[in-house]
Amino acid sequence: MTLLTDFGTTDYFVGAVRGAILSVNPQACLVDISHEIQPGDISAAAFTLLAAYQSFPARTIHVAVVDPGVGSQRRPIVVTAADQFFVGPDNGIFSYILERERDARVFHLTNVSYFAPWISSTFHGRDIFAPVAGALSQGVAPEELGVEIHDYVRLPVLTPTRKANGDLVGQIIHIDRFGNCITNISRSELPAAPSKRGLRLTVNRKEIRRLQRFFAEAGNSAEAFAIWGSAGFLEIAANNRSAAEILKAKRGQKVIVLTD
Amino acid sequence: MTLLTDFGTTDYFVGAVRGAILSVNPQACLVDISHEIQPGDISAAAFTLLAAYQSFPARTIHVAVVDPGVGSQRRPIVVTAADQFFVGPDNGIFSYILERERDARVFHLTNVSYFAPWISSTFHGRDIFAPVAGALSQGVAPEELGVEIHDYVRLPVLTPTRKANGDLVGQIIHIDRFGNCITNISRSELPAAPSKRGLRLTVNRKEIRRLQRFFAEAGNSAEAFAIWGSAGFLEIAANNRSAAEILKAKRGQKVIVLTD
Amino acid sequence: MTLLTDFGTTDYFVGAVRGAILSVNPQACLVDISHEIQPGDISAAAFTLLAAYQSFPARTIHVAVVDPGVGSQRRPIVVTAADQFFVGPDNGIFSYILERERDARVFHLTNVSYFAPWISSTFHGRDIFAPVAGALSQGVAPEELGVEIHDYVRLPVLTPTRKANGDLVGQIIHIDRFGNCITNISRSELPAAPSKRGLRLTVNRKEIRRLQRFFAEAGNSAEAFAIWGSAGFLEIAANNRSAAEILKAKRGQKVIVLTD
Repeated sequence: MTLLTDFGTTDYFVGAVRGAILSVNPQACLVDISHEIQPGDISAAAFTLLAAYQSFPARTIHVAVVDPGVGSQRRPIVVTAADQFFVGPDNGIFSYILERERDARVFHLTNVSYFAPWISSTFHGRDIFAPVAGALSQGVAPEELGVEIHDYVRLPVLTPTRKANGDLVGQIIHIDRFGNCITNISRSELPAAPSKRGLRLTVNRKEIRRLQRFFAEAGNSAEAFAIWGSAGFLEIAANNRSAAEILKAKRGQKVIVLTD
Repeated sequence: MTLLTDFGTTDYFVGAVRGAILSVNPQACLVDISHEIQPGDISAAAFTLLAAYQSFPARTIHVAVVDPGVGSQRRPIVVTAADQFFVGPDNGIFSYILERERDARVFHLTNVSYFAPWISSTFHGRDIFAPVAGALSQGVAPEELGVEIHDYVRLPVLTPTRKANGDLVGQIIHIDRFGNCITNISRSELPAAPSKRGLRLTVNRKEIRRLQRFFAEAGNSAEAFAIWGSAGFLEIAANNRSAAEILKAKRGQKVIVLTD
Repeated sequence: MTLLTDFGTTDYFVGAVRGAILSVNPQACLVDISHEIQPGDISAAAFTLLAAYQSFPARTIHVAVVDPGVGSQRRPIVVTAADQFFVGPDNGIFSYILERERDARVFHLTNVSYFAPWISSTFHGRDIFAPVAGALSQGVAPEELGVEIHDYVRLPVLTPTRKANGDLVGQIIHIDRFGNCITNISRSELPAAPSKRGLRLTVNRKEIRRLQRFFAEAGNSAEAFAIWGSAGFLEIAANNRSAAEILKAKRGQKVIVLTD
């Protein structure tokens, strides 16, 4: 079972979620994906989960709680996809998984008998998602936990668009600890030879023309380069430096692949 | 078994404690509450443990090490309370548990045969508390580990006081990652109708008159409101904003519930 | 099994490594040493591992990934030492273990059948080191994973040097969260009575003459003192204060033990 939240690690929140899961299933094996999602940043959580879930074995239960709408009418859900489970709020946090996994099903958690006996209106991570995840880990079927829905919340799709002239318009969807800028451009979208002049990207009015295989290939050059990243997306990186700083790049900025 | 320390996660300290526990009991299931308590901040650790312990199942062993007096005459102790165990220094870190759990018992760890063979004078987390916790997890009774004591160290009590005019005087005991200000006022202390004019709190000369059920209820209002928090205390919060910043509130500041 | 990386805890990296290990061996017990090594800081990782490994039981598998050369010709290795295993890049990260454990053996991981089926050139933590560690935890012998090598990369040795006049010249190898400055001077190098005038150290042109047994012994003094630290090295510390700040000390600075 994995945990992904915006709770940080300074407060008692993550501890309480862990305790609530172990109270239902003391044998649960808990591992963290991250608790450092910026408060309320649903799309960052959605990307992080997308980049991590395929590394986990079948039957893994992912508990993802970035939940600014906690206590309101937003629904608690469980998603089944790729032979794994995803438990959390219906606010788009599982969008990218649902976009990729066509066999996915979504269930509204309506069976309160699997919730904690007393439910706060500010901490469903502890009072709803943790006990439901505990129940799933003991073999309770999603159908027992709630009813299937199809009108779940979706984030804007992750795929890049194309201009009339053929240029591919992506964006930076994540900047990692090392300053690498991860785009939403995957291999299937990028032709092997995007233009006669080779790969040419523009970010923030700066052009990038090198595609490298690994970081150290750049030697001591302070220039940014493109690289196929470990999450399956094109990244803009620099060797032992922050590409985000070099390019003054921010999440959400456009990355354009030129085609002539 | 849980860990709560002020060790941070940058150094080898937490790793060494985990290793020392697993060296005694390789089957131990270790989960973190937090390692980001400010160095030496015993009352923050005491609050964090108070807010988390009830989420854990019976027989959980909590190892709490915020220990500025390590190596001095301060005693190592184990507390039994609420069918759980608490291992750490006798410096008040378990005060709030002891205040709440009337069946609690405290034992001075005197049986050195359960300590590491070589004990440093700067790292009892690794050399005393970890191996003792390992022993507890293997079924060793507290009575075997030491002798019961009654003169353990207590922090000032957590309960609010009352003015002659009936006003309730609490304080901010914790500010969480989201900027929510947790007070020491619990439901039993706050009358359902504190005054004819409804709930009225003052913090830092600012008045708060709204009591909400959940965060998103505030919509986009930038105003702070009161809310019953997940740790069982009254909190001052704001929707998608830091109430602490709005109110320029600090830990320790008074929160007064007006009664007329 | 332990993890030590420079991945931070904000991104999906650590989660992906955990998932990759559990995909090979779902029974693996994963504990963190730290993920907050500064990006690319191999010697900090080497020190942290040195300070922690002896706390862990026999057969522990340590996965250490601070790997600026990922994707280049640098070799992936496994080290066997002290009845434990160490998996990571051949860049010096295991130097201090190899310096201390004379029975150590180093194997170049050449058997790609134990790697992930698809290997990125930027994330060998997930694609090589995690699955190899998973295999080790299932009993695969190092000899099956690769071939023994002797020309592995070494960092400069950790031991202090001696001046013609007998003064011992060490250095600060780590500054911990509390501001304690850990030197590379161990008990065997420091005579019980370094000089007629007792222990005298200089750091940054400041002299330190007190050797304390524990932190609180200093009372409220704001002065720095020497103390034998929990990693077995002489440290420069201050009570409830940062010795590094008091002395304006930085990692790498000389610490000289005067002999007359």
